[in-house]
Amino acid sequence: MQHHLNKVGKSYLELEDFTRVKVGDIGEKGLLEQLQRFCPPEIIGDDAAVMAIEPGQSLVVTTDVLVDEVHFSDRTTSPEDAGWRAVTANLSDLAAMGAVPLGITVGLGLRSDVLVSWVERLYQGMNECLQQYGTPIVGGDICRSPVITIAITAFGQVHPNRIIRRSAAQLGDAIVVTGVHGASRAGLELLLDPDLGQNLSQTQRIALIQAHQRPQPRLDVLPLLWEVSGESATVAGMDSSDGLADALVQICQASSVGAKIKRSHIPIPPALNNWSPPQALDWALYGGEDFELVLCLAPEPANALVQQLGNSAAVIGTITSELEVRLIDQTGKTPDQVLSLSRGFQHFS
Amino acid sequence: MQHHLNKVGKSYLELEDFTRVKVGDIGEKGLLEQLQRFCPPEIIGDDAAVMAIEPGQSLVVTTDVLVDEVHFSDRTTSPEDAGWRAVTANLSDLAAMGAVPLGITVGLGLRSDVLVSWVERLYQGMNECLQQYGTPIVGGDICRSPVITIAITAFGQVHPNRIIRRSAAQLGDAIVVTGVHGASRAGLELLLDPDLGQNLSQTQRIALIQAHQRPQPRLDVLPLLWEVSGESATVAGMDSSDGLADALVQICQASSVGAKIKRSHIPIPPALNNWSPPQALDWALYGGEDFELVLCLAPEPANALVQQLGNSAAVIGTITSELEVRLIDQTGKTPDQVLSLSRGFQHFS
Repeated sequence: MQHHLNKVGKSYLELEDFTRVKVGDIGEKGLLEQLQRFCPPEIIGDDAAVMAIEPGQSLVVTTDVLVDEVHFSDRTTSPEDAGWRAVTANLSDLAAMGAVPLGITVGLGLRSDVLVSWVERLYQGMNECLQQYGTPIVGGDICRSPVITIAITAFGQVHPNRIIRRSAAQLGDAIVVTGVHGASRAGLELLLDPDLGQNLSQTQRIALIQAHQRPQPRLDVLPLLWEVSGESATVAGMDSSDGLADALVQICQASSVGAKIKRSHIPIPPALNNWSPPQALDWALYGGEDFELVLCLAPEPANALVQQLGNSAAVIGTITSELEVRLIDQTGKTPDQVLSLSRGFQHFS
Repeated sequence: MQHHLNKVGKSYLELEDFTRVKVGDIGEKGLLEQLQRFCPPEIIGDDAAVMAIEPGQSLVVTTDVLVDEVHFSDRTTSPEDAGWRAVTANLSDLAAMGAVPLGITVGLGLRSDVLVSWVERLYQGMNECLQQYGTPIVGGDICRSPVITIAITAFGQVHPNRIIRRSAAQLGDAIVVTGVHGASRAGLELLLDPDLGQNLSQTQRIALIQAHQRPQPRLDVLPLLWEVSGESATVAGMDSSDGLADALVQICQASSVGAKIKRSHIPIPPALNNWSPPQALDWALYGGEDFELVLCLAPEPANALVQQLGNSAAVIGTITSELEVRLIDQTGKTPDQVLSLSRGFQHFS
C-alpha cells in the first residue's frame, strides 16, 4: 500500500501531480487507506469499531445525510467547511441531548471524478471540528455514487439524570438561548451576494461569514449547565439548527406547554441589527443553522447559566400554560406575534 | 396529519390511490412521520436517540452506504429484500466482532418520484430482519437525492473479553466456518439468468435464491461460541461478506500468520456441487455475501462449536506460521493453490 499523501520526502511536483488524482484512479479501497490517517489506528481495520463507554452512562445516537447541491455547494462552501458543518450538525444534536461525543462514523458516496484531494480536505475539515473535543472518526464506508453524499452518525454518552429532552419543559421555566441567532443566515446571504450589507465593516462581514462556515456545537455549555442545575434538576431543550422559532415551537409541542418570548431579549449580532432590523429578527427566528442551544430550566439556575456563559446568552422568556408561543414587543410598536402550535409556526415577513 | 398508511378504516380505493403517492407529494418530514411506526415511540422525536448499554460492555459501531444500481437493483431485488440485505450486512459485522446488536440508524437519500410505498417496503424488509433479534431502528434522516442511497449504521455491545478481532489468530488455531459458502452467488446468478442450473430441483433453486435475497447474520453463533470457548479464551475472526478467500487472507494478514485449508472440507451446498463442481468451489471462495463467520480458536473448542452448530459448519483448516493461505486438495487431483498475503489473494478460474 500506499500513503500517496504522506508528504514527507515528496517533491513539490509530485504533490502537484497528486492534487489531480481522482477517486476513480485509486478506487474505494485505495481511498479508504488514504483516509485512515484521520482515524485512530487502534480502532480501524476490523469489521467494526470498538469504543469504551463509561459505566452508568446511556448511549446517544444521531444521524444526518447531506447531499451535494442540496445541503452544500462548491459555490458557498469549501470541502473543509462542508466537513466542519456536517460534524457540527451532529455534535450539536448530541449537545442538545446533554451528551458528550464518543465518536462518529462517516459514509461517503462519491463520483469517480471527484478529486482525492477534495475528499482529503473534507476529512480535514471534519477533523478540525472533532479535534476540539478529542472525538475520533471511528469508521466509515465509501462507495460509488452519481452524487456526492455524506452520511454521518455521531455517538455520545450521557448520565441518565442529565438527558435533555424536548418534552421536559415545565410551567414557569425560564427559556435560555446560548450565543446569537441570525448570524449564520446573514453569512450565507453575504456569500451568495457580496454586494449586500454595504454598511458592514470588514470585521463584521468576516464574523458573519465565519458563523455560517464554521458554526460551533455548544458542547461547552454542558459542564456549566451541570454546575448550575445540580445532579437531578430537569432541563428541557433542543438545538436551534432549524431556527429559533422552530426550536421554541418543537419544545412547547413536545412538552404540551406554551411560551412567552420578549422579542427585544433575543440576542442578535449588532452588525445584523445595523444592517436591517426587521430582517435581523426574521433571520434570528427563522434563519436556522446557528446551532445554539435553547434550554428550559428553573429561573434561578437559568440566570446563573447566563452569567456563566456571558457572550450574548440570554433569558428570552418563560414557559406558560397557553398552547402558543407568543412573541411580545415590550415597546408596544408591533403587535404580539403568535406562533400557533397546532398549525406549526407561521413565517412572517 | 398523517398516518396516511394507517390502513384501519380506509377503503380499498383509498389504499389503491395511496400506493401511487410519491415521496415528493408528502415531503421529507411527512415521510419521516410515516416511517415512525417502524421505530420505538419512546426513543424518537428528539435531537438524538438514547439507549441503555449494559455496564462493563464496550460499544461496537459499523456503517455501510448502499447506492441504487451499484449495490441493489430492482431487477434482482425487491425493496423488502434490499432492506433485509442491508440490515444483514451490518448485523453480520457486529456478529463478526462478537457483539450483540442494540439498534441501527437509517439515512435515506431519495428522488422525489420514489413511491412512498417503496420506502415503506424497504423499511418492512429491514424490520423483518431486525425483529429476529429485537433490534430497533432508533433514528434516521431523509433527504432529497438524485439517486436512492441507503446509509445504515449499526451499533452493538460486547464484553471486552469477548471481542473477536481479525488480528488475534494464533499458530495452531483451528479455522471454523459456519454454514455453507457459494449459495448467495449461485442465487444471484439464477436471478440474473433463470435458464441456468437446469439440473436443479425447484426446492434447490428456491433455497439458493433465498440465500441471496434473505441472508442471515450469524448472531446465533455467539452464545454457542461463549459456551464452548469460556470467558477469557481468544477468538479471532471476521465475516465472509467479501468471500471466504478474502476473509482467510484478511485474518492471516492482520494476525501475521498463514493458513492451511483443506479444499474438500469447505462446506458447499450439495445442489451447487451437482450443478458444476469447479464453479461451486470458485463461488464458495470468491462469491461473497454469504455473511457466514470465519473463526479461529483452539482445536478443542473449535470441534465443540462445530458439533453445537451442526448444519454444515466445519473445521476447514489450521493457522500456520508460513505467511500464505494454502488450499490443499487431499485427493491430489489438483495442485495446491496459494493465496499470497503480500499481493492480496489471486483469483483463479
